Formats: sequence, C-alpha cells, structure tokens
Amino acid sequence: MAPDFSQEFQRQLVELFRWRRDVRRFRPEPLESGVLERLLDAACLSPSVGNSQPWRFVRVDEAARRGAVRAEFERCNDQALGGYSGERAANYAALKLAGLDEAPLHLVVFVDHATTAGHGLGRQTMPETAAYSVVSAVHTLWLAARAEGIGVGWLSILDGGTVAAILDVPEDWRLVAYLCIGYPEEEHLDPELERHHWQATDPKARELLFR
Amino acid sequence: MAPDFSQEFQRQLVELFRWRRDVRRFRPEPLESGVLERLLDAACLSPSVGNSQPWRFVRVDEAARRGAVRAEFERCNDQALGGYSGERAANYAALKLAGLDEAPLHLVVFVDHATTAGHGLGRQTMPETAAYSVVSAVHTLWLAARAEGIGVGWLSILDGGTVAAILDVPEDWRLVAYLCIGYPEEEHLDPELERHHWQATDPKARELLFR
Repeated sequence: MAPDFSQEFQRQLVELFRWRRDVRRFRPEPLESGVLERLLDAACLSPSVGNSQPWRFVRVDEAARRGAVRAEFERCNDQALGGYSGERAANYAALKLAGLDEAPLHLVVFVDHATTAGHGLGRQTMPETAAYSVVSAVHTLWLAARAEGIGVGWLSILDGGTVAAILDVPEDWRLVAYLCIGYPEEEHLDPELERHHWQATDPKARELLFR
Repeated sequence: MAPDFSQEFQRQLVELFRWRRDVRRFRPEPLESGVLERLLDAACLSPSVGNSQPWRFVRVDEAARRGAVRAEFERCNDQALGGYSGERAANYAALKLAGLDEAPLHLVVFVDHATTAGHGLGRQTMPETAAYSVVSAVHTLWLAARAEGIGVGWLSILDGGTVAAILDVPEDWRLVAYLCIGYPEEEHLDPELERHHWQATDPKARELLFR
C-alpha cells in the first residue's frame, strides 16, 4: 500500500528543502559509521532515464589524489578570478568556495556513458538526460544527508577530464559532481552566496509563462 | 535555529524516495487549487550554481500547442522504435511512455543560458552545471508533488528545439524537462520500466570505487 504522507511530513519536507545548503565549512571529524552506505542507498532510489541508473561513485582518500584535486581546484579558481575585476574580483577572492581541506569525505559522482542499461530509452533526442539522472542522484543524496544533519558541498570549479585522470576511472565516465561531505561548522537558512553578497535570491526566477 | 530532523522523518523521507515514480497513467481531474504554486515555491528552494536560479517555467494549456507537442512526441517515438528490432521492439511499442493526453497539467522547465545571475561563478569549467541546477529544481518539485499524492512524468522523447519553438520561449532557453502532472491512476513501488520488463534495477549501480 502506498503511504499517505501527512501534512506535517509535507511541512517538514519544505523545511528540509529550505535548510539544505551548499556547505563549504566543515568540522574535521569523520562521519559516523553507516552514513555513507545510507547515502548511497538513498541516491540509488533516484529517477533515471530508461531506468538506466548511470550513476557511478568514487570515494577519494589517498593523500596524493586529494592533493592533485586540490591543485586542480586552485588552478581553475585562479583562472576564474582572472575573469573578474574591481569589487567583483575582491568579492570572489574572499569567498570560500571549497571545503576540500576539512571535509572528511570526498565523494565523486560520474555518469557512465558506456552503460547499456536502459537500452537507450528516452536518450535518443535528449542524450543529456543520462547526466541529468546522475544529478537527481546527487540531489537525493544531498537531501538525505541534510536530514541526518550532514552537510554537502558541490564543487564545480574543476576540469572534469583532469579529475577523471587523477582518479583513474573508466574512460566513458564523465564527472558530474565532486562532493565534499561532513558535519557543518555552522547552520544558516540563507544561501552561502547570498550571505556573502555574491548573488541574492531572486523571486522573479519563480515566474510562470502561460502558453 | 536549524531544525533537528527526527529519525521518523528520515525514515519517511526514504519512503518518499522509494515511492516517487515516473508516472504516465493519470486520472484526468484537475489539480486542487494552490498545488502548482506550492510546487513552484518548492522548486525554487533548489541548489543552483552560483545561486544563479536559471530555472524557467512554462505552463501549457492551449490545445494547439498541446497537439503540436503530442505530434512531436509521436514523431520522436516512432523514430526511436525504428532503432529496435525483434522482441525489444515489441516491448518498446507496448510501453506507455507519455501521459500527454490525460495529465491535467503540462509544466515545461527550461534553463536560461542568458541569465547573468550568479555572475558565472562555478560555470567556467563546467557550464553544464546551469542545466544541472534546473534538474535539481525538477527533482525537488517531483518529491514535493509525490508527498502530496501527485504524480509527475518526465518526458524526454522530444526534440528540445522543436518544443522551444512550439512554446515560443526566449531564444536562450533550452528544454530540460517536459513534465506531465496529475493524480496517478495507480500506485506501485516498482519502477514503471521494471514493471513492464524493460530494465530491472541493478544493485551493481551502487558500487563504490576507492581511490
């Protein structure tokens, strides 16, 4: 029998959406045992095009690989900084954009373009839906983590090919998300980039066109 | 103060992930008033790269536009069917892949590549994260809908450019998801494509590589 989700659950679900944050400030202690397994279980309940389940997970612990990822982030971040000037550049330079040093868990999520699962269904005209399926899995994991009081930060200031090479993954895997995961150092309701005056939330983004 | 989500909430959240389905069999009655507004509110709480909020929403009610979308789906679906043979083709032909005729609400979600919100942060090396942000919004809406007993079906057997033209949207918008939304005709825990013997869920997709 399908569950009937209560109004109280619906209210708490919206609270979860509101309090899910992109976290870059972590406490260094490791996650409790069993957390990662629960997060992977949740991620695999996500929708995927043709039920192709193209998500692939890599945990990064080796110091040399973490160091190489950190150097790649520094390189990409310096390049991005070079694209701004004046006050905007000063603001960018002051942002904390990664929690690579503190986060106890680095979990990297790829899309596998070589999988035959799903038999191509739904991917003929929109092949990008394979990667979109993996994004759903990342988002599911993110919400499940927040419900346990665990923070997730999605780092995209990286070159996907370089990260794939550093992690030595199969050649048909493409980077979707480099995630830093751990207990957050602080909790706040406003997005990190709003809080630090980069980009405010814009009610206009909710507008609906009628056709 | 950040909420402390209870173990009971965490358990129900996993139930929500499990019961969220890609729905293609809808009852025709309209959604209760206020539903769409709540779903859009929830979607806009999603993470987005640089807080760019690049999601754009279009509601399709005009019969001529719905008819043109339906014809485009038929065209793409016939073409996809032509790529299969034998038993696989017979199985494909028997699948119900869209709920376009019955679903009371057609909601189309685009990514706006022209937005300056977010000032390019996080999008230099991975520009695809703009579309990924929109996928998160779709997934948030999907979960919020399921919590209210409402079904969502994501249709990707469409050409994005054709749909954009049919709906006459700004030129920098790209299709991410064509959603059929309504009350489901049936409830089941197994994915539609597993139930109809297209693609089973594969525990191997949960494997974790260590690096």
